[in-house]
Amino acid sequence: MNATDGPPGVPLGEPVRREDDILERIAAIVGRRNTPVGEVHVGDDAAVLAPFVGQTLVSTDTAVWGVHLDATLFPLEDLGFKAVAAAVSDLAAMGARARAIVVAVTAPPGTDLEELHRGIADAASATDCPIVGGDLSVGRDVAVAVTVLGECPGKGAVLRSGAQPGDQILITGPLGRSAAGLRLRRTGAGLDHPLVVAHRRPWPRLAEGVAARSAAVHAMMDVSDGLALDLHRLCDASAVGFELDDVPAAEGATAEEALSGGEDYELLIVTDAPARLDLIFHSRGLAAPLAIGRIVADRATRGLRGAHLERRGWQHSL
Amino acid sequence: MNATDGPPGVPLGEPVRREDDILERIAAIVGRRNTPVGEVHVGDDAAVLAPFVGQTLVSTDTAVWGVHLDATLFPLEDLGFKAVAAAVSDLAAMGARARAIVVAVTAPPGTDLEELHRGIADAASATDCPIVGGDLSVGRDVAVAVTVLGECPGKGAVLRSGAQPGDQILITGPLGRSAAGLRLRRTGAGLDHPLVVAHRRPWPRLAEGVAARSAAVHAMMDVSDGLALDLHRLCDASAVGFELDDVPAAEGATAEEALSGGEDYELLIVTDAPARLDLIFHSRGLAAPLAIGRIVADRATRGLRGAHLERRGWQHSL
Repeated sequence: MNATDGPPGVPLGEPVRREDDILERIAAIVGRRNTPVGEVHVGDDAAVLAPFVGQTLVSTDTAVWGVHLDATLFPLEDLGFKAVAAAVSDLAAMGARARAIVVAVTAPPGTDLEELHRGIADAASATDCPIVGGDLSVGRDVAVAVTVLGECPGKGAVLRSGAQPGDQILITGPLGRSAAGLRLRRTGAGLDHPLVVAHRRPWPRLAEGVAARSAAVHAMMDVSDGLALDLHRLCDASAVGFELDDVPAAEGATAEEALSGGEDYELLIVTDAPARLDLIFHSRGLAAPLAIGRIVADRATRGLRGAHLERRGWQHSL
Repeated sequence: MNATDGPPGVPLGEPVRREDDILERIAAIVGRRNTPVGEVHVGDDAAVLAPFVGQTLVSTDTAVWGVHLDATLFPLEDLGFKAVAAAVSDLAAMGARARAIVVAVTAPPGTDLEELHRGIADAASATDCPIVGGDLSVGRDVAVAVTVLGECPGKGAVLRSGAQPGDQILITGPLGRSAAGLRLRRTGAGLDHPLVVAHRRPWPRLAEGVAARSAAVHAMMDVSDGLALDLHRLCDASAVGFELDDVPAAEGATAEEALSGGEDYELLIVTDAPARLDLIFHSRGLAAPLAIGRIVADRATRGLRGAHLERRGWQHSL
């Protein structure tokens, strides 16, 4: 952890030892036992990483306690897990390999920072990506700003903007699990209910993203704010329209949750060669993506089974 | 800007257009007119950067309005500037070249996000480093989490841990300007007073850091929390002690401000070849670093003109 910067001239006393103690305990939670040769993680002004292969990718996302996760229904460590998983999913969406994570936390005095960082460490470990640095500040909110770094060798990252008329639209799995999990939790389901787990501990589709990049798909993104918003965004970026035949709902999720729930982090894939995609997914032991529709040239065509699909999903009011 | 992630299932209305509007205006403020060929900045799931040369460096820092900058004395755009400058300074401290910045902002509804991002853009432009991505969330605090990416070609980054007994300790400039500026502002000095500007608009020593790396110095860090804290940290990392002859105070700063003020972002340099360092700085048109003392083998020796120098500086109380 780097030292935090602050206003000058305030003499130190007990708080210093307190912060040093906390940073040491956090480093023990998030740090790897072995730092690769030639790398420096926590402890210097910046982390030093061995050279990346190909393009460098970077994305940043903040999760705020009580805004991005209901503080009355879920433990604090889930906030850490979700923040990291959401950020890593942005790398999956480009077909990148995850290389490193840095985490900047603000929290009011007295927050259980160890619990929060256990969730952060769990997600880092689940995605096999090291936490290489961080920062700790006092604030009124518990907020976790996660920045992820990835690399894309070969022909590079898959963008949102490459969809072509006639391409097929696929999704890596059925949707609505996270929204259904939140609904069930609100009505008393336990934290270990599979759908509640899908909400608490989302799984970034890194392997699927890399496989899709290998299959030279035209466009890709992750479904973080709901298909009914994210597919519009992909088509805006590509200057095309879409016709959906179907939106596959996960078992236990409603059609509405599948359409606009968000936070499932399935990948939306657009390709002119779905058979090749299938083959590559199959050869890597990944579930076959589900075909849900096709790209059309007319930008204004945004259809689901013939009806117009409105743009909706979750956004901040600022 | 990436879309922010949030709880699922909330229907959209007016707020969506509001956020989309804001993101567009922010992108116009922070974005570069020309994105380099082969790169993608704001607008996809992650930013895509052309391959880095050598090691990749990363550091993250948060600045909270009212904690890291006095909200009653300084405009909001200074928070943005300081947050970026502090983060970029961590790259300077390693001898790195700055390649990219991402910024995650949380703010209460109604915050002047354009003003905040003007400060962010000013600092990016002053350090010649593009803002390539960001995130926007609702929170009670205005908080700016800045992550910087840099590259270190050649023999790589300069760490804190390389100081050797007998090495000379130097500093890139006199200290205490930022602390003096805050003191003057509190007693009525204008925002354009040179010392107040030093507090509002600190200058990361990127050119000095690269020059010091070229001179193969043994250890380096930036003075962000005050010399009386940061020099201890460098010597802890190197398992050595120090003897300081002098702590040069900037004009208008007190000896105490120079010693423990912090936020000056001068570089602390440790080398066994100060003449070579001088020559390289001179050949690049940089002011000669000031010799302030030397490294000693005994870890417990932490002296200033023969007296023991206590560890002090600014830290969070968590």
